[in-house]
Amino acid sequence: MPYRAPLQDFDFLLDHIVAFDQVRRTDRFAEASPETTTAILTEAARLCEEVMSPLQRAGDLNPARLENGIVRTAPGYADGFRAIAEGGWLGIAADPEYGGMGLPQTLAVVLNDMMSSACLSLELCPLMSQGQIEALEHHADDWMKALYLPKLISGEWTGTMNLTEPQAGSDVGALRSKAEPQPDGSFRISGQKIYISWGDHDMAENVCHLVLARLPGAPEGTKGISLFMVPKIIPDADGSLGARNSLRVVSLEHKMGLHGSPTAVMEYDNAIGWMVGAPNKGMAAMFTMMNNARVGVGVQGIGAAEGAFQHALAYARERRQGRTPQNAAGAIIEHADVRRMLSMMKAEIFAARAIALANSVAIDMARATGADEWAARAALLTPITKAQGTDTGIEVASTGIQVHGGMGFIEETGAAQYLRDVRVTAIYEGTNGIQAMDLVGRKMMDGGEAAFRLLQEVEDFAESARASFPDLADDVWQAAESLRETTEWLVAQDMTDRAAGGAAYLRAFARVLGAHFHLKAAIEGDNARQMLARVFIQRILPEHAGLLMQARAGAKVLYALSDDDLAA
Amino acid sequence: MPYRAPLQDFDFLLDHIVAFDQVRRTDRFAEASPETTTAILTEAARLCEEVMSPLQRAGDLNPARLENGIVRTAPGYADGFRAIAEGGWLGIAADPEYGGMGLPQTLAVVLNDMMSSACLSLELCPLMSQGQIEALEHHADDWMKALYLPKLISGEWTGTMNLTEPQAGSDVGALRSKAEPQPDGSFRISGQKIYISWGDHDMAENVCHLVLARLPGAPEGTKGISLFMVPKIIPDADGSLGARNSLRVVSLEHKMGLHGSPTAVMEYDNAIGWMVGAPNKGMAAMFTMMNNARVGVGVQGIGAAEGAFQHALAYARERRQGRTPQNAAGAIIEHADVRRMLSMMKAEIFAARAIALANSVAIDMARATGADEWAARAALLTPITKAQGTDTGIEVASTGIQVHGGMGFIEETGAAQYLRDVRVTAIYEGTNGIQAMDLVGRKMMDGGEAAFRLLQEVEDFAESARASFPDLADDVWQAAESLRETTEWLVAQDMTDRAAGGAAYLRAFARVLGAHFHLKAAIEGDNARQMLARVFIQRILPEHAGLLMQARAGAKVLYALSDDDLAA
Repeated sequence: MPYRAPLQDFDFLLDHIVAFDQVRRTDRFAEASPETTTAILTEAARLCEEVMSPLQRAGDLNPARLENGIVRTAPGYADGFRAIAEGGWLGIAADPEYGGMGLPQTLAVVLNDMMSSACLSLELCPLMSQGQIEALEHHADDWMKALYLPKLISGEWTGTMNLTEPQAGSDVGALRSKAEPQPDGSFRISGQKIYISWGDHDMAENVCHLVLARLPGAPEGTKGISLFMVPKIIPDADGSLGARNSLRVVSLEHKMGLHGSPTAVMEYDNAIGWMVGAPNKGMAAMFTMMNNARVGVGVQGIGAAEGAFQHALAYARERRQGRTPQNAAGAIIEHADVRRMLSMMKAEIFAARAIALANSVAIDMARATGADEWAARAALLTPITKAQGTDTGIEVASTGIQVHGGMGFIEETGAAQYLRDVRVTAIYEGTNGIQAMDLVGRKMMDGGEAAFRLLQEVEDFAESARASFPDLADDVWQAAESLRETTEWLVAQDMTDRAAGGAAYLRAFARVLGAHFHLKAAIEGDNARQMLARVFIQRILPEHAGLLMQARAGAKVLYALSDDDLAA
Repeated sequence: MPYRAPLQDFDFLLDHIVAFDQVRRTDRFAEASPETTTAILTEAARLCEEVMSPLQRAGDLNPARLENGIVRTAPGYADGFRAIAEGGWLGIAADPEYGGMGLPQTLAVVLNDMMSSACLSLELCPLMSQGQIEALEHHADDWMKALYLPKLISGEWTGTMNLTEPQAGSDVGALRSKAEPQPDGSFRISGQKIYISWGDHDMAENVCHLVLARLPGAPEGTKGISLFMVPKIIPDADGSLGARNSLRVVSLEHKMGLHGSPTAVMEYDNAIGWMVGAPNKGMAAMFTMMNNARVGVGVQGIGAAEGAFQHALAYARERRQGRTPQNAAGAIIEHADVRRMLSMMKAEIFAARAIALANSVAIDMARATGADEWAARAALLTPITKAQGTDTGIEVASTGIQVHGGMGFIEETGAAQYLRDVRVTAIYEGTNGIQAMDLVGRKMMDGGEAAFRLLQEVEDFAESARASFPDLADDVWQAAESLRETTEWLVAQDMTDRAAGGAAYLRAFARVLGAHFHLKAAIEGDNARQMLARVFIQRILPEHAGLLMQARAGAKVLYALSDDDLAA
């Protein structure tokens, strides 16, 4: 089932829901005019529909494989990546000084959403490069920027992130890889890294690894971690490739999904590298990259959900089975429960997408204006975008299988692949549990100020919407008010009680925001938007009440159950 | 990770939660004494732990395959099946006249739960035979019983169900397979059937197909369907095998999971068969089998959830990552959010299992006493057991992956297999959408009487529990009362509005029942049972309120969104 980019939805969201025009009005992003936006997104849609979507099954059927130390990707992937690179898409948000388009992050988010729908496992490669480009722009010395950025932006080289080690996953501070300083200012990097997405491949001539490691005598934990650029092949100062570095792919993982994307165990054995940023400040540099990468992963979930939804919708319109009063023709879409599933899938995607775009608008505004309030808004929304986007991906993909009935379990149909592929997005780039801890911990260190400010906007908008849709507006207002009360309770608790309710709190927050954006769509859009808003606000938003009770349940009962009680 | 049968849980459920003693007090099931039950379940646990659990990964890694028309199963499967057969487990609930144990269905449910945890794809084969045995006991002529039942019960032969055709899935009445009567009283069966679980294999000497087909001139739809026994190899009257019948496996499906279980496309080409039951009454005969098969599939979900839970729990106790105030040793189980996931998994399994066992007790009581009230109770609970059990399987298995973090996405870990395997249980044996329609349609044709009777019991018990646990008891009472009100509303609606809310209504019903059984466990059990009840009632039960709002949302908005609106 070929993917069709929902350009109308993106236009509506940008113009009417997340106020993208304020980004356009900044000096920094003045070039992102409506005409440019349309041209860019139309071209990106073509790439996704015509080049990437046909590769979706190929990657699943031909997992990346390691042959004599060389990683081979699925047939067509190299051409697909070349098309992405030649379109300039790797540098959509990158600095024009190095060949980037310099466009807002918001448009990168739309691009990544479409690419994720079309072929998630291939999209992950440009996503990693985008993250590396951003990290280098912020933290690398000028010589490194001049050498690496043009190559990464052109797609001649690609980038990876190397954080995890077998004993250091969510607890990054436990990593043990070492970096020995050399007289010439370079470093020798040694250690093993796991879960390295696109750690090697045959689609570009070089792979640039950003590796977290410890300098000799560095403090323990996250305060003693530095960041290094470690290329697979060592470039000269002019970028031409020299000797192979001392690093290798030990093995590729055999995964539940995302087969097209090689996930490598990497071994660095005295490999040559150069420091990025200051000594022992690697985590800060990595966080620059990781925050946007988290938005990017949330968007992977949303994109996969869109792909799964389109797939299920097409099947439901075609498959004839059973007759009902509404169902003379006999397509299963006319059955109330199938229609419910499809309507809820669509409403969920709209909500998660609106949150991700509001998040990226805040990122763009923070960059363009330097205003703390925008930065705080972006920081608050990031864990919500990541966790809700990926949960939406998983839930919508699973419902997509259900819509297909028995055919959903048969791999040839393609419905199951969406679920198998997207499942990891709730895990990598910080598990969704880590996102929840981030939201109720770090992101509430302001005493909830950023959250209260956002909820005030939600309530104000709901007040203004009462005249048009009194029932919907009141539901949204009440939900926001309950969330405010729970937020007030939350910030007064210790971290253990917060963490025990964090996942439920995050989801409740996403429900309120989703309802807010749907209410806005009902006001700004046509009858169909209003009906979809009703689906969300009447069927999905009510979940928030139970979630808030869970959010406030505290940790005591959880710890009153001993480990042995759980095992009994 | 080897499976360990939760015998303590089963004992507690049977003795304190679902009042299995009333089954024992009937004449029919007087043999199922506490001593016999313990002996039987201990022996079954040994089979599951020692024989079946080691086959779990083998089936995934060695999918059943079709070679020159013969289906080959994974290494060890044939021996595993032989052990099941030799233990007499195929006939646990079958008539002793033909070699069965004649034990209550409730004990078959416990057996199937354990077998599903240990190795779901292998368990499906005995489950199909159990269903066929039951159908023949109820509907076959004496000669057919005498010929087939001993072979099916001994496991020399196995059974299948052949309902679905490419154009006839949920809409069974659309099937086109034909049965031509022959002068000798037999029939010639022709047609193609799909999704035939264990349609062929190398574990037994014969495979007996129960096939739905139409007699010449039969009425359209479900009223013109008859049921036929069509064996792969035609037996003599004494059971020795003669000529091969004219049927074949066309192909095996390439599935998301359950790789060990062959799913066949079957072709019948003038195959010889014999009618089971009366002409044109095939659906009724199939429903006998299907109702218990639905409970059986719900139990597959619960068993898979148990396997996934044990797997995740073992990992969480072992994996060290991060330090918290509770977490000096460093196992991730001490993190509040991991503990929350594990506690909720365990609470969900207990709730779904209690529902399934209450359902099977009702089935046993209906059989033993003939009382309509028990039959109505069993009929009401069946769609809830099926849908909630399988949804629990999917959700718990997905959470199990999450507990594993990155390792959850790596196939070698085994966590992903639980989700891939169990995903189909929400689809086959009537999709969960069909279960919801059954609950709000057929099962409410009594005006809700059976539901109200059950809710009265829930409310009465909650009243009596107020003295011990006022907070928990009140939560349960209030939830039951809300469900009663929604049930009153529901039975006054037309089928389209009911169907639009059916899935949410079913899930809300399961939440109330789960909370009821957990409240009972708090009263009857130790401190750990009380804490687990608190997890369910405080964290999971509150979901019912949002679900009931969704249940009452009606169909209007869903149909106000046109097909093109959904595609826009």
